[in-house]
Amino acid sequence: MKLIFLGTSGSIPTSRRNIPSIALKMNGELLLFDVAEGTQRQMAIAHLSPMKVSSIFITHLHGDHFLGLAGLVQTMALLFRSDPLEVYCPAGERERLETYLSIPHYTLTFDVIVRELNPGDEIRRRGYRILTSEVDHPVPSLAYAVVEDDRPGHIDVKKAEALGLKPGPDFARLKAGQSVRLKDGTVVKPEQVVGPPRPGRKIVYTGDTKPTERIVNLARGADVLIHDCTLDDELADKAEENSHSTPSRAAEVAKRAGVKLLILMHISPRYEDDSTLQEQAKKIFPNTLVARDLMVIEVPFHNNT
Amino acid sequence: MKLIFLGTSGSIPTSRRNIPSIALKMNGELLLFDVAEGTQRQMAIAHLSPMKVSSIFITHLHGDHFLGLAGLVQTMALLFRSDPLEVYCPAGERERLETYLSIPHYTLTFDVIVRELNPGDEIRRRGYRILTSEVDHPVPSLAYAVVEDDRPGHIDVKKAEALGLKPGPDFARLKAGQSVRLKDGTVVKPEQVVGPPRPGRKIVYTGDTKPTERIVNLARGADVLIHDCTLDDELADKAEENSHSTPSRAAEVAKRAGVKLLILMHISPRYEDDSTLQEQAKKIFPNTLVARDLMVIEVPFHNNT
Repeated sequence: MKLIFLGTSGSIPTSRRNIPSIALKMNGELLLFDVAEGTQRQMAIAHLSPMKVSSIFITHLHGDHFLGLAGLVQTMALLFRSDPLEVYCPAGERERLETYLSIPHYTLTFDVIVRELNPGDEIRRRGYRILTSEVDHPVPSLAYAVVEDDRPGHIDVKKAEALGLKPGPDFARLKAGQSVRLKDGTVVKPEQVVGPPRPGRKIVYTGDTKPTERIVNLARGADVLIHDCTLDDELADKAEENSHSTPSRAAEVAKRAGVKLLILMHISPRYEDDSTLQEQAKKIFPNTLVARDLMVIEVPFHNNT
Repeated sequence: MKLIFLGTSGSIPTSRRNIPSIALKMNGELLLFDVAEGTQRQMAIAHLSPMKVSSIFITHLHGDHFLGLAGLVQTMALLFRSDPLEVYCPAGERERLETYLSIPHYTLTFDVIVRELNPGDEIRRRGYRILTSEVDHPVPSLAYAVVEDDRPGHIDVKKAEALGLKPGPDFARLKAGQSVRLKDGTVVKPEQVVGPPRPGRKIVYTGDTKPTERIVNLARGADVLIHDCTLDDELADKAEENSHSTPSRAAEVAKRAGVKLLILMHISPRYEDDSTLQEQAKKIFPNTLVARDLMVIEVPFHNNT
């Protein structure tokens, strides 16, 4: 699991930050979360192929979160993509997105399937699930969580060999939860030699929002929480008014949700120096980073597994 | 007159080139020709304010030529623009553009006026005219010319003073084509002391097109001709098939039109090294440049004026 921050600015791009998009590379698949204008160019700079994108998850339809979609789709068509592309958006926004996608003159070589999601909906994928949650922003908006499936526990090799098992198909069967019958007729059950399942990783992206209890719930125990942090603590009133967040408030959410790493995102163009944002958050939640364009975060498996 | 190349790639952006947009700075006004996605970020890098843009001229509605418009408009609104913005497009495309502009959730603080132009239409502005021409591309498309008004001739100061005139209001009146009556009653007519009008400058941008006779006509005597050059001479057949141009064919147009400078534009992503393109064109038209992102071209007044 590797996160590549393609755009980290709030609302308006700057020379150093493009507007929001985050790529998640996982088992050879590429997911995008938000797709601001300029995302396809950021992908070129980050050496990510448009052809590898399987799904795009849009938090909401403010211009700075989705206006790179049609251009990316045109590029995929120019490269003769044939695999369908799934685009997810908040409930009620499908027609708007489909109309938008119908505007440019292009000949699509593949299907773009736009699907609406309600808060609380869950998508099951091979190896992971996508969860959604309502947020607090003035247009239909979703936060997304990627939750990797738990992996089978490790086999206690010494114990297994002592029972007469050999590494290979028997081990695989036990890890898959099946019993194995030895030549002498003895049956070995998985729980005899396989440790507890190892928890999958979890990443949460809020999109634009005020801090809300719902994000605390969605982000519970996450490895990475990417949280709106448009303005600094001094401008908390303005952030509140515009349904955005601040370092301290994002850090409170991270702390209460018990996440491992907080990444501050959607940084207002006014912060050429973003160190204040990090300092403010760290007072409450020490393991905080400020997202920067083209920053890459590897999300490791949990320490003890 | 200063040209700033904001995006110079053909169809797909690369790490070094964004897709098409050209800014023209002229008498404190800022015009954009095409507005690909990512243009507003290129403007930030080039220190051009979105608020200064008075008009945007779109050559055609392939995605790589206009999909930065809605994002730029959103940014203008976030900055509380109040001046209207004029957007020009080929005849028949207004509804499509207006629908596109209606997609994002935003609150506009100013009017966006979309106007259609037919080939041959002319727009009169303070100090210059915009001319249009049909091109050879498979969707409704226009080439644009900016033609600066002629400026009044220089005053022959020695001659004027010998006649009893003094620099100041009298000179201004004469340059504006009015006669001046001296204290002794003598009348001095402009033609006695004012030289011939000094021709204005002319810039032509083809957008995407095969070379056509119409461009030769539109570009006649231009200071700068910015011409489609998507592919190199070796790929002339493919260029022809896709309604694009090559260095030699663009150079032929430049030569026949008698322009001063040819700039090759809309460079296919395959040319990481664009020197071949320049070499091929220079054989036919020596004064050729390949457009590069953030390149700035000052267009001087004509030598002898």
